[in-house]
Amino acid sequence: MKRRDFITGTSISAAALALSGCHRAEETAEDGTVSINKAKKVTLKLATSWPAHFPIMGTGVDSFAKRCFELSGGSLEIKVYPKNILVPALQVFDATSAAQIDAFHSGVYYWKGKNPAFSIFGGMPLGLTSEEMITWMKFGGGYALWREMYGKFNLYPLIGGTTGPQMGGWFKKEIRSLADLKGLKMRIPGLGGEVMKKLGVNPVLLPAGEIYTSLERGTIDATEWVGPALDSMMGFAKAAPYYYTGWHEPGSILEITFNKTRWEKLSAEHQAIITAASEEMTSNMLQEFRYKNAKALQVLPLNVQIKAFPKDMMDAAKIALREVLEDESQKSSDFKRVLKSYEAFVKLNKPWDDISTRNFLEIRS
Amino acid sequence: MKRRDFITGTSISAAALALSGCHRAEETAEDGTVSINKAKKVTLKLATSWPAHFPIMGTGVDSFAKRCFELSGGSLEIKVYPKNILVPALQVFDATSAAQIDAFHSGVYYWKGKNPAFSIFGGMPLGLTSEEMITWMKFGGGYALWREMYGKFNLYPLIGGTTGPQMGGWFKKEIRSLADLKGLKMRIPGLGGEVMKKLGVNPVLLPAGEIYTSLERGTIDATEWVGPALDSMMGFAKAAPYYYTGWHEPGSILEITFNKTRWEKLSAEHQAIITAASEEMTSNMLQEFRYKNAKALQVLPLNVQIKAFPKDMMDAAKIALREVLEDESQKSSDFKRVLKSYEAFVKLNKPWDDISTRNFLEIRS
Repeated sequence: MKRRDFITGTSISAAALALSGCHRAEETAEDGTVSINKAKKVTLKLATSWPAHFPIMGTGVDSFAKRCFELSGGSLEIKVYPKNILVPALQVFDATSAAQIDAFHSGVYYWKGKNPAFSIFGGMPLGLTSEEMITWMKFGGGYALWREMYGKFNLYPLIGGTTGPQMGGWFKKEIRSLADLKGLKMRIPGLGGEVMKKLGVNPVLLPAGEIYTSLERGTIDATEWVGPALDSMMGFAKAAPYYYTGWHEPGSILEITFNKTRWEKLSAEHQAIITAASEEMTSNMLQEFRYKNAKALQVLPLNVQIKAFPKDMMDAAKIALREVLEDESQKSSDFKRVLKSYEAFVKLNKPWDDISTRNFLEIRS
Repeated sequence: MKRRDFITGTSISAAALALSGCHRAEETAEDGTVSINKAKKVTLKLATSWPAHFPIMGTGVDSFAKRCFELSGGSLEIKVYPKNILVPALQVFDATSAAQIDAFHSGVYYWKGKNPAFSIFGGMPLGLTSEEMITWMKFGGGYALWREMYGKFNLYPLIGGTTGPQMGGWFKKEIRSLADLKGLKMRIPGLGGEVMKKLGVNPVLLPAGEIYTSLERGTIDATEWVGPALDSMMGFAKAAPYYYTGWHEPGSILEITFNKTRWEKLSAEHQAIITAASEEMTSNMLQEFRYKNAKALQVLPLNVQIKAFPKDMMDAAKIALREVLEDESQKSSDFKRVLKSYEAFVKLNKPWDDISTRNFLEIRS
């Protein structure tokens, strides 16, 4: 199939096409037939919470935008703006809600100040893995609740990637028992931070750019981040060589969220394109995280010691988590409703996962 | 945006559009601009190895075809033909290779007679889970090898779904040790069957429609199938109530495969649409299997006893598998090449999976 310039020999008026503002591209098929290709061009502005082309998350949304363009034959252009170009990283939610931009790519856990229930959509300590989380969203009622609650902000959310299981964090000293946590300052956000607080930790929040220095100077004793692929870039190993396996973010999902009014005005075709491209992005990101985490693990500095948290700490974390969830449920009826749906899925899923994936991974090892 | 019939008031010639054979649909935007929507219509015939609308696998490919139509604004129509309508279930590979049809949806393990290496793409006993398998395909070189080897049959393959971990099968009698396998007749295909043979089992192949009766009459002693969601439909519980957890098909993938010449003639847009829709289908199918297996597990007949195979059997299976893989590698250089790539990924992946997913599922339980 060859593309060529507009054929003036046909009776199609160039003026009519120009008037329509559409992106036109003639194609001549092998058999000589000419067809006219494309709908009215739509351009959307999407802001992210990541630096430009940030590995995996940023490059993932770049690929998503490119894919929307390809799938639509050029009629859907999504312009990606890294953090702080159009909108500050943590104002993308508000800016999209107010229709200052059309969409954003970020992490759901950032918005728990808007509604405590949103922290559940972001991921749950000791909860569902990425695959399980997405199954809950699609088949267990999660998506319906998320869209209802985001609808109140005039937003329409889609899953926009997932990290897979994250690591438990970097510690300056080894944690041999629950007692060793007492008084530690750790950079850890979200529900994981709430649980750690009940275990005696002082959870602190720090911008990404300040974590390493704080760790190196001893202002904090520990930090969590993501996993080997992204953590390696931060240099934590030098200041805090005890690297703990994960428990608090087993399946955090990211989001591609649209202004709802804008979404509803899109054609059914463009809505389908965005949805399919977000699904492709989510799978690719999960697989890319797996691959790059595995690669990065091979080349961790020699001083790094990988450890699992002691059993008494994990037992206490399970109890503390129940308390945190009860506290949050009492404070927020939305949290309570989402938790009920989430826990119904956990109850359904666990017996099957125990005899399938978990059992298999044990046999294989 | 409203759709309406062709507007004769424009200077676009209806004859020109009719000549082009394109699917036309005018759209009038809110601002009154008119644009012309769609490329030349392409219709593809896709045959499957499943009965019409077979749960999860058949309905999955139905949804895939519908999605291609939506994503293309109607310019790409994939007509799905269930097994034996256009082509017998196990002749879809040959029919697509010979361009009698354009594409097929089936399982890769069916074609090991064409090339022994294809059994690895279908799934490996004690091998990679679905997510790991797809990561190997995309990031570890699997796709390149698969496409090279299918290319010799003028075929272009895409992953077209995955079952997630399958169960180990239904047995009439309990398996308490390796010795209990001796002389059993079991319906089990592929590399799993080869391993079972080395453990003393007589593996047999039977069409789906004959399995239950053979089990009930004692012509066979055991059968594997898929997992609770699909197994429940077969009624195996009545004849063989010992239901064993899985080891031999942890991440079998299905395929959507195109005649390569036909694929290369598709526009870049239609290729992108098919690829994205196949990704969406793969995620959806994995999540649907998880959900429906979990649901079906809850309502298994009361006489069913879920068991894990004894340790001495699994230890012997690991040794037998090594022998099977060495035998196959000696017989086929393609098998050897694919196995080398697969095992390099296993080696890369395992340390990460052990400290992330496996470790997490242990902590959680």
